[in-house]
Amino acid sequence: MKTAGIVGGLGPEITAQLYTSLIEEARKRGHETYPHIIIDSIPLLFRLDSEQIGRGKNEQIMLELLTNSIKILEKAGVDFIAIPCNTVHCFISELQEQTKVPILNIIDETIDVAIKNGVKTLGILATTETRKTNLYEDSAKHKGIGVVAPTESEQSEIEHIIYKILNQTHTAEGSKFLYRVAENLVERGADAVALACTDLPLIYDLSLSPVPVIDSVIALRDAILRELGEDY
Amino acid sequence: MKTAGIVGGLGPEITAQLYTSLIEEARKRGHETYPHIIIDSIPLLFRLDSEQIGRGKNEQIMLELLTNSIKILEKAGVDFIAIPCNTVHCFISELQEQTKVPILNIIDETIDVAIKNGVKTLGILATTETRKTNLYEDSAKHKGIGVVAPTESEQSEIEHIIYKILNQTHTAEGSKFLYRVAENLVERGADAVALACTDLPLIYDLSLSPVPVIDSVIALRDAILRELGEDY
Repeated sequence: MKTAGIVGGLGPEITAQLYTSLIEEARKRGHETYPHIIIDSIPLLFRLDSEQIGRGKNEQIMLELLTNSIKILEKAGVDFIAIPCNTVHCFISELQEQTKVPILNIIDETIDVAIKNGVKTLGILATTETRKTNLYEDSAKHKGIGVVAPTESEQSEIEHIIYKILNQTHTAEGSKFLYRVAENLVERGADAVALACTDLPLIYDLSLSPVPVIDSVIALRDAILRELGEDY
Repeated sequence: MKTAGIVGGLGPEITAQLYTSLIEEARKRGHETYPHIIIDSIPLLFRLDSEQIGRGKNEQIMLELLTNSIKILEKAGVDFIAIPCNTVHCFISELQEQTKVPILNIIDETIDVAIKNGVKTLGILATTETRKTNLYEDSAKHKGIGVVAPTESEQSEIEHIIYKILNQTHTAEGSKFLYRVAENLVERGADAVALACTDLPLIYDLSLSPVPVIDSVIALRDAILRELGEDY
């Protein structure tokens, strides 16, 4: 039986949601046993700001926390690792160099789901840091599809909303703003919009979305179940 | 910084609830960082029956799953281990013999909370297996308080309700029955009633309880935070 490793705590709400969603989906698919999952929930600061997760002045602290987590999961004996946070995927090459355990790439998985759904141009709802590092642009280009990004002022408001989610001060207005931006992205050429930050599904209700959506958390969950194999 | 290890998946809903509750409580208490938590979610069978968790014909399988989990958490470097399931505490001595990492005892922690709350006699809502192994009776006796247990027919229905929770087929009638048994326990001398099975809080609404309740999951959560220490 295979074992999945998850770098958790980025943030904890989405870690818990991914975990329960893995269980529910495994049950739905008719598996006989629960999947074997090891979660390492890292000791991040409670009050996150935009300088703490991605590239920038706190890069070394973040990279050290992630490397430590990957080493812990490796020691625990996992067969592969998933990191439910798009932004920190800017470190994925450095992290993969630290271990022989394969690390799934949430960005590639999300783009693959989009392609499977016939998407030619994907709108991106992500942190400013994810946007800056061109994670989605590079993967999409490599896989032959286009991306459409929010305007600068929309992006600045999205960033604000994401940090409100992380600090548990988000409002219904935030959700409504995201639906409007998603519509704008489709008006500007997107066939679907990616929730390319794992915190967004916490306030972006798929049933209220005015446009088709690809959820990066679900893309990662399905990749984990695929890697666990049919009989785990 | 200390690291908490959790043997998860018994069942997953309560594992996720304990995890998010640890985070929320740490935030509420004003900690600067999230606690460092490693969860090993074990590959139990989806369709549990009463012979799979405690003593009996599947004892060796269960003991092997738990021992394996404890070894994984030990390798991952945790400072102590918590097991959010009362029933499997019948194996706690055997498990503690397998590792130098201290394992918290949810039963002792629950009894301690009851005593701190001035309880002299505690009513027990638990699995039949937990009742059979006298886990609460022995700990309560040792700590100088009494226990009151449900009648045989009440116990048989409680068991039925717990396995409905595990198999996700529980109904509102189940909750109402538990409130009635809790009242009966108080009528028969209990000052408070312990939710002595970690699955019960999933359908026992504390705000609807007709009598004072001690929740074993909260007792374990507070013990984990205590062991992590003030600054973790």
